[in-house]
Amino acid sequence: MLKNDLLLRAARGETTERTPVWLMRQAGRILPEYRELRGRLSGFKELVETPALAAEVTIQPVDALDVDAAIIFSDILVVPEAMGLTYEMVEARGPHFPTVIKTAADVHRLRVADPEQHLGYVLEALRITKRALNGRVPLIGFAGAPWTILAYMVEGGGSKTFSKARRMLYQEPALSHELLEKITATTIAYLQAQVAAGANLVQVFDSWAGILPPAHYAEFSTRYLAQICEALAPLVPVTVFAKGAWWAIEDFARLPCRTIGLDWNQSPREARQQAPGRTLQGNLDPCALYGSVEQVQAATQAMLREFAGGPHIANLGHGVYPDTDPAKVRVFVETVKAWRG
Amino acid sequence: MLKNDLLLRAARGETTERTPVWLMRQAGRILPEYRELRGRLSGFKELVETPALAAEVTIQPVDALDVDAAIIFSDILVVPEAMGLTYEMVEARGPHFPTVIKTAADVHRLRVADPEQHLGYVLEALRITKRALNGRVPLIGFAGAPWTILAYMVEGGGSKTFSKARRMLYQEPALSHELLEKITATTIAYLQAQVAAGANLVQVFDSWAGILPPAHYAEFSTRYLAQICEALAPLVPVTVFAKGAWWAIEDFARLPCRTIGLDWNQSPREARQQAPGRTLQGNLDPCALYGSVEQVQAATQAMLREFAGGPHIANLGHGVYPDTDPAKVRVFVETVKAWRG
Repeated sequence: MLKNDLLLRAARGETTERTPVWLMRQAGRILPEYRELRGRLSGFKELVETPALAAEVTIQPVDALDVDAAIIFSDILVVPEAMGLTYEMVEARGPHFPTVIKTAADVHRLRVADPEQHLGYVLEALRITKRALNGRVPLIGFAGAPWTILAYMVEGGGSKTFSKARRMLYQEPALSHELLEKITATTIAYLQAQVAAGANLVQVFDSWAGILPPAHYAEFSTRYLAQICEALAPLVPVTVFAKGAWWAIEDFARLPCRTIGLDWNQSPREARQQAPGRTLQGNLDPCALYGSVEQVQAATQAMLREFAGGPHIANLGHGVYPDTDPAKVRVFVETVKAWRG
Repeated sequence: MLKNDLLLRAARGETTERTPVWLMRQAGRILPEYRELRGRLSGFKELVETPALAAEVTIQPVDALDVDAAIIFSDILVVPEAMGLTYEMVEARGPHFPTVIKTAADVHRLRVADPEQHLGYVLEALRITKRALNGRVPLIGFAGAPWTILAYMVEGGGSKTFSKARRMLYQEPALSHELLEKITATTIAYLQAQVAAGANLVQVFDSWAGILPPAHYAEFSTRYLAQICEALAPLVPVTVFAKGAWWAIEDFARLPCRTIGLDWNQSPREARQQAPGRTLQGNLDPCALYGSVEQVQAATQAMLREFAGGPHIANLGHGVYPDTDPAKVRVFVETVKAWRG
């Protein structure tokens, strides 16, 4: 039984006594207690792959920031790894895949992962977290959107243009769909297993949505998001966050996702019109937290006003930036909690 | 006297016998003749700073691709350099500023550049190009938008988040405006000098527009774009291209810019409604040129149909990617030329 179920009620579209609030990347480098723990380890992956430690950093922001949800500490790239493509996390540079997907043979070599066998460490982290939280707040599970995972698998890391991955969509559409289907099958099984392990809500992150032309987005991303939403919606509320894909909101409103996440450039007012009845999540500019206390309060209140007219889960429009002062995050959280729209 | 003035007539909003076409970054690595010349030099900057060579590569795509305009081969970062902040172009990594703007003293130390004195090499390249073109096609001059230049000056190079530059807007708005005013003054004088040196049209590139929240964009970018448009519009047609700023089209429609550039995610149909009477430029996905001849033809025709209902200058939605086959660029150009909407 949850002591604080504001997030779930808002995600179900119910009216809540106040707006729930959490932050993408709240478990991470903004917190000194995270940096202290992380400093004792060999690297990011050791933390992700050690369930007791992942659970510990998942709970840190619940204590330190008093947010209304915990999100399991992990990475979207555990999915390609489970499918057979190992990633490295290079300090201050980001992810890197020593081997990338180039040919049909590469796609065929990938497996549809078995969650317990290949992603057991995340499931174990969820179970430990769930017990340790003891119902304080809901626990969020997550995965990357199939398009974003394909982009990393083909590109081998971050990119300004993702032109290799996008080239594949133009040159090898059938092979692209084959790869997306494998990723989708893995992702559905993985998210279902996360729910079985204790996740109360799942969020799908489409970090590289904004790079695709709208027609390609519909064909190569929304189609697979739909499959994920249909498989998960009977179990828990599903949130879709497609960064930069301002044109996709109307399509998302036709999916069985309860909540649609907005980045800081998207318009909550327009999204309300495009997705009536859905819960919206977001969308303060992460850089707004660089302002003074008064500026953070004013920016947060302005953001809250923009979301009037329907259920809202307050968040940033992107993951919190690592050099953000936790005191300013607390101002953001407190301003949301004090708000009575 | 221009033998082919299609671009200028379309930019003035006149009906033309066919749609003019050119490509952003058409002078560059896609052409073997460019790579051959570039290979004989010490680096990118030698090419930019040697007027006869810059003129040569400016004209190469007019010969090789049969486009309806030449755009002077240069870089938006010549402006910060002229103001006192030297940049380096690091092979395969992009621009890097060894010194960046951090304090008020740094801003005060920058000069408003004198175009003839500090950017004379670009003006000389324009004059040489103009003579060599001998009226074949119009010559386009360009500069970066003040916000994008500030972003590079503060960040020191490319960035996924531009959080240092965006932090400055939140923490030091007055200083940000002071810096933007200096950049704007330099940019206006520079573009006026480009017109005096032979540019028939000027384009302002706001490459990092899409990273700003709409309210910040209006305050820190559109305000300065307005000053540039007002200063240049009496001389030549002005094009504004703000990548990712789909929300800004309505504001641009209030500026004296004749042409609004669209990226491949922006909707030509919506832009027609938001900016009635303006010429629109764009917006094929650069990755569409990775397709087969038939695919490139079909994608180009689909794009042309989207722009129906008003004057259009065909282009990509971003600079052409360096690994694009020039033969496919020619298919794009020929498809536009053959089109009779």
